[in-house]
Amino acid sequence: MKVQNNNISKFQIPHFQLDSGEVLEDIEVAYTTYGQLSPSGDNAILIFHALTGSHLLAGNYEQFHDKTLPWNEELEIGWWDDFVGPEKMIDTNKYFVVCANYLGGCYGSTGPNNYQMSGEQNFPEITFIDIENTQKQLLDHLGVKVLHAVVGPSIGGLMALEFAARFPNFVNKIISISSGLKVSTLQLLHNLEQAYVLNLGSNSIERKKDYLALARMVAHKTYISLELLSKRAKDETEYTEDYLDNFIKTSEESYMIHQGEKFTERFTNESYLSIIRGWQNFRLDESILQNISSKDVLILSVDSDVCFYPEQQINLANVLKEQNCNVQIEHFVSEKGHDSFLLEPSLYESPIKNFLNVREN
Amino acid sequence: MKVQNNNISKFQIPHFQLDSGEVLEDIEVAYTTYGQLSPSGDNAILIFHALTGSHLLAGNYEQFHDKTLPWNEELEIGWWDDFVGPEKMIDTNKYFVVCANYLGGCYGSTGPNNYQMSGEQNFPEITFIDIENTQKQLLDHLGVKVLHAVVGPSIGGLMALEFAARFPNFVNKIISISSGLKVSTLQLLHNLEQAYVLNLGSNSIERKKDYLALARMVAHKTYISLELLSKRAKDETEYTEDYLDNFIKTSEESYMIHQGEKFTERFTNESYLSIIRGWQNFRLDESILQNISSKDVLILSVDSDVCFYPEQQINLANVLKEQNCNVQIEHFVSEKGHDSFLLEPSLYESPIKNFLNVREN
Repeated sequence: MKVQNNNISKFQIPHFQLDSGEVLEDIEVAYTTYGQLSPSGDNAILIFHALTGSHLLAGNYEQFHDKTLPWNEELEIGWWDDFVGPEKMIDTNKYFVVCANYLGGCYGSTGPNNYQMSGEQNFPEITFIDIENTQKQLLDHLGVKVLHAVVGPSIGGLMALEFAARFPNFVNKIISISSGLKVSTLQLLHNLEQAYVLNLGSNSIERKKDYLALARMVAHKTYISLELLSKRAKDETEYTEDYLDNFIKTSEESYMIHQGEKFTERFTNESYLSIIRGWQNFRLDESILQNISSKDVLILSVDSDVCFYPEQQINLANVLKEQNCNVQIEHFVSEKGHDSFLLEPSLYESPIKNFLNVREN
Repeated sequence: MKVQNNNISKFQIPHFQLDSGEVLEDIEVAYTTYGQLSPSGDNAILIFHALTGSHLLAGNYEQFHDKTLPWNEELEIGWWDDFVGPEKMIDTNKYFVVCANYLGGCYGSTGPNNYQMSGEQNFPEITFIDIENTQKQLLDHLGVKVLHAVVGPSIGGLMALEFAARFPNFVNKIISISSGLKVSTLQLLHNLEQAYVLNLGSNSIERKKDYLALARMVAHKTYISLELLSKRAKDETEYTEDYLDNFIKTSEESYMIHQGEKFTERFTNESYLSIIRGWQNFRLDESILQNISSKDVLILSVDSDVCFYPEQQINLANVLKEQNCNVQIEHFVSEKGHDSFLLEPSLYESPIKNFLNVREN
């Protein structure tokens, strides 16, 4: 098989100041790029990945994974390979696309696991603003003068919005997918439960991964619709082993346990907690939304989403309309729930393509 | 202060056969009674308590708690004191009211903690059928010939329904409050998460109670409405301590942690898991619902309930109507969510009083 790409790079930042004032020395940001930057540096699109996503956005990475990082077969093909590429809806013949792993992540950007490994002090608490700042510095380094668009699904949409409001002259268009404006009460509670689980397991050796599996289970039920869960579960093989002292009796339970366990192959407890903490503390300063007044914003919403409910996208649209943004909101009918943006490219194709390609007024 | 009542009794069963076939020796069922049984034994009402409820149904128990059992001030006044008593909606001048602690519970009925204490084998897996059977034997022992009504809120409603279907000649009327017909997918997942948490903590010594606190948090968010949570949280004192490595930042989180911790004063990990397991495995054999054909059933539903959603009560009503039951369903508008039946007696007074006091056709 011919290898398609090996476009993984690392950007070094010798001194990186966190929003808290603390300075991190010698951090790295792992990223990928697709397409060519125009001479005027104005055809770039920045894509923020979701909570447990990565910079492995499009293409085949089977041959290129770093064996020191968490990995399973889900990472072999870029998570948005259907969306990003030559003549795809985010067309890399036209646009220079950049995707970077979050600061605090576990796919090559500096995070809590690097700090543990080098025996330094604990990795500090970081915010979405810190993550955004690493990516702004990366874009400056790459010679990007202005982003054609900043795009994000799920919590990536929160970052895309905040990024645009913080660097308004650097961003033309915004796409927010299955996301919102703030942390909902239900998200706050789910994040708390997950942080609590990981805290309980912080000194565990034998069962450390089980704590991460449970955290994932708490979250995963919000990524799919429960109707779909019941359907999917029926197709999965049931556990026959004596699991949880023989508590597990249904295929729904087996399915969920399986999802939790599979996830632990490709993530670390420490990065998960770092990002959850950033999400939990996300508070967009709404006064800076006036900075994006009159910009074009595309908001995409899935009716069965129970992580970021459609009401949250409608609320976002209304708030941005009050800021005189040119808001286009589309509601998709789908049974796939929050994860639709990973599973149903055909729904997204026409709105995203049209939105990106229409010239600004 | 004059002591109002000391009506706590224990019923001994020398050999109790579980639905699984296994026999438990020398079990006890802790219970309370209120009012007088009529000479013909037909004025009794059996009340199944909710998941973490007790047989301490009505009256003041401040002076009477057994210091060997889990306890806090929430148990001082019977959990349905507003509902049950002389001239109250469940009128103990008319009715002989019985409430028993679940088999597997931690308030005096035989459960996993007794088994641990006596060093015998592990407490076996029990079902709601087993719990119902202990209570049927208790009623026989007390001389009850036929129940005027069987009543249950929350999972107590599942037991009330199954009890009536299994002993149809023994039950006249049924009241199901904020309950349903089966375990919903969301309940299945929440129960799984809680069982997983308790399993992770099963060998913990120092932090054992924290695992129970987290299990309670997972459940508690379904007992109240999230809007109400936000309101309540604002009135609570925030944690100032460094909790969960300083993860906690909002009053909603502090409130939820506080709820979890407070619960661990009055419950045990082992009883909680035993009852959750029974709930998880509840599968009402719908073919036996034909046994309750033509009975009077009152179904009460709260619009903001996110534990047993109103749809679940509507489904129950429809299934019972198909069995030619005389179904009366009332939907309450309330912001109190699932816990409404503990907090808003005035909503329930008229429907319950009327339903109990109307003569059967």
